[in-house]
Amino acid sequence: MKISFIGAGRVATHLAHALYAQGFEIVQVYSRNLFHAQVLARTVHATSIDTLADIVATDLMVIAVSDQAIESVITQLATLVDDHTLIVHTSGSTAMQILTKHHLRAGVFYPLQTFSLEREVNWSNTPFLLEAQYDADLLRLNEMARTLSQQIYHYNSEQRLSLHLAAVFANNFSNYCFDIAKQTVERNAVDFNLLTALMKETAEKACQFDPKVVQTGPAMRQDQNTLDAHQSLLQQQQAEDHLAVYRLLSEHIKKRHQVK
Amino acid sequence: MKISFIGAGRVATHLAHALYAQGFEIVQVYSRNLFHAQVLARTVHATSIDTLADIVATDLMVIAVSDQAIESVITQLATLVDDHTLIVHTSGSTAMQILTKHHLRAGVFYPLQTFSLEREVNWSNTPFLLEAQYDADLLRLNEMARTLSQQIYHYNSEQRLSLHLAAVFANNFSNYCFDIAKQTVERNAVDFNLLTALMKETAEKACQFDPKVVQTGPAMRQDQNTLDAHQSLLQQQQAEDHLAVYRLLSEHIKKRHQVK
Repeated sequence: MKISFIGAGRVATHLAHALYAQGFEIVQVYSRNLFHAQVLARTVHATSIDTLADIVATDLMVIAVSDQAIESVITQLATLVDDHTLIVHTSGSTAMQILTKHHLRAGVFYPLQTFSLEREVNWSNTPFLLEAQYDADLLRLNEMARTLSQQIYHYNSEQRLSLHLAAVFANNFSNYCFDIAKQTVERNAVDFNLLTALMKETAEKACQFDPKVVQTGPAMRQDQNTLDAHQSLLQQQQAEDHLAVYRLLSEHIKKRHQVK
Repeated sequence: MKISFIGAGRVATHLAHALYAQGFEIVQVYSRNLFHAQVLARTVHATSIDTLADIVATDLMVIAVSDQAIESVITQLATLVDDHTLIVHTSGSTAMQILTKHHLRAGVFYPLQTFSLEREVNWSNTPFLLEAQYDADLLRLNEMARTLSQQIYHYNSEQRLSLHLAAVFANNFSNYCFDIAKQTVERNAVDFNLLTALMKETAEKACQFDPKVVQTGPAMRQDQNTLDAHQSLLQQQQAEDHLAVYRLLSEHIKKRHQVK
């Protein structure tokens, strides 16, 4: 199966590397920024292009660009390729229909993972969410995903959106809480590394049990003394934004764990 | 060293078990609820009491009760024991001074960890924050902590409070984000287990790098389309509280990562 990548960012880079390592042939890498295309293309022995009109026919085109750019890319691609080519996007929050309304042979190949260029991806732990207009294409995507992970799911676009939204809470917002924690201790010259075991344990525990059941802390205990002591310290630190987060989340946790 | 525990909750139970396993003699366990005292006392071959006046002199008394109850406990203990006994509390958010104003030979023995009765504690990963009125007692607490962990810190009460506050963000609030994530996917009949690898990876990454540097997501990218799609889905799910959290945290992340 010959594959081209539209996009050369984090998702495109990690996916192209992984598929190349599994023996898939990567033909072209497109980016608006030719240098970015070259950086990725070189590592997977592909050619780089910065003009979509230069794209050649392949079995599969993977659109891994920012969500806002997907529609403009598919609009152009649809005029350049025929039904020989399956086109997928890799977006959790974008419906498949944004592709099918321009090019019927379409699908979604969404790896649910947080990608950064600094860290290796653990593919075997990464769930893949697949969707395709045609059953035969779903099977093809399934086979391709299977070379990277055993966790393959067929969910529709709305289910995928709800998972993508949930991932914002599970990943982006929990990471932002870690970020606030770091700023909080550093304002008192305390080492952030003291919190790392706790952070890992929190994630482990929430995975092993229901996070509602393992909730702890002053808000959950309705411990107003400690809630007040924390808010005084945040006021003293002049951390207005962090105080607002503290208040809102504490109110919600109190409400969720109220004894009825 | 002979030790008694005032309190029989999660912290008292885990600490008493760990110290007993290291060969410390546990003499008495006090709880207002005699049954709770008995449950813990039995497992560490101690006697159980539900009246503080029945306490006998030991080298060390560990007050591991709710923060609000510490002052009432020390007020009573101070009338019952003399300077032969070192009294410590195990609270992150309570100043040592609440003890020293009643009993000078006092200190703090605070394990920074999230305790639940369902899960074994990894002590070697657990930082201990120690404080004592007298240097000789700080050394004693240090020796005792060292049997459980290599991570021992001497911070003052304000630094300990800032760490306790940071732990609310790092543990309680991130866990609440996991809780919201679970509710979000389950409203669309999607399996929460799909998110567990992501949750663990989030914690690992924030520990290995600076959480600010590894922040991802639509708010950080200032991706208004995705922010809108997520908010529409939350509205459609009638999850008003989760929508409020989504809005506040997204605004803060946008602000923190604004290109200036």
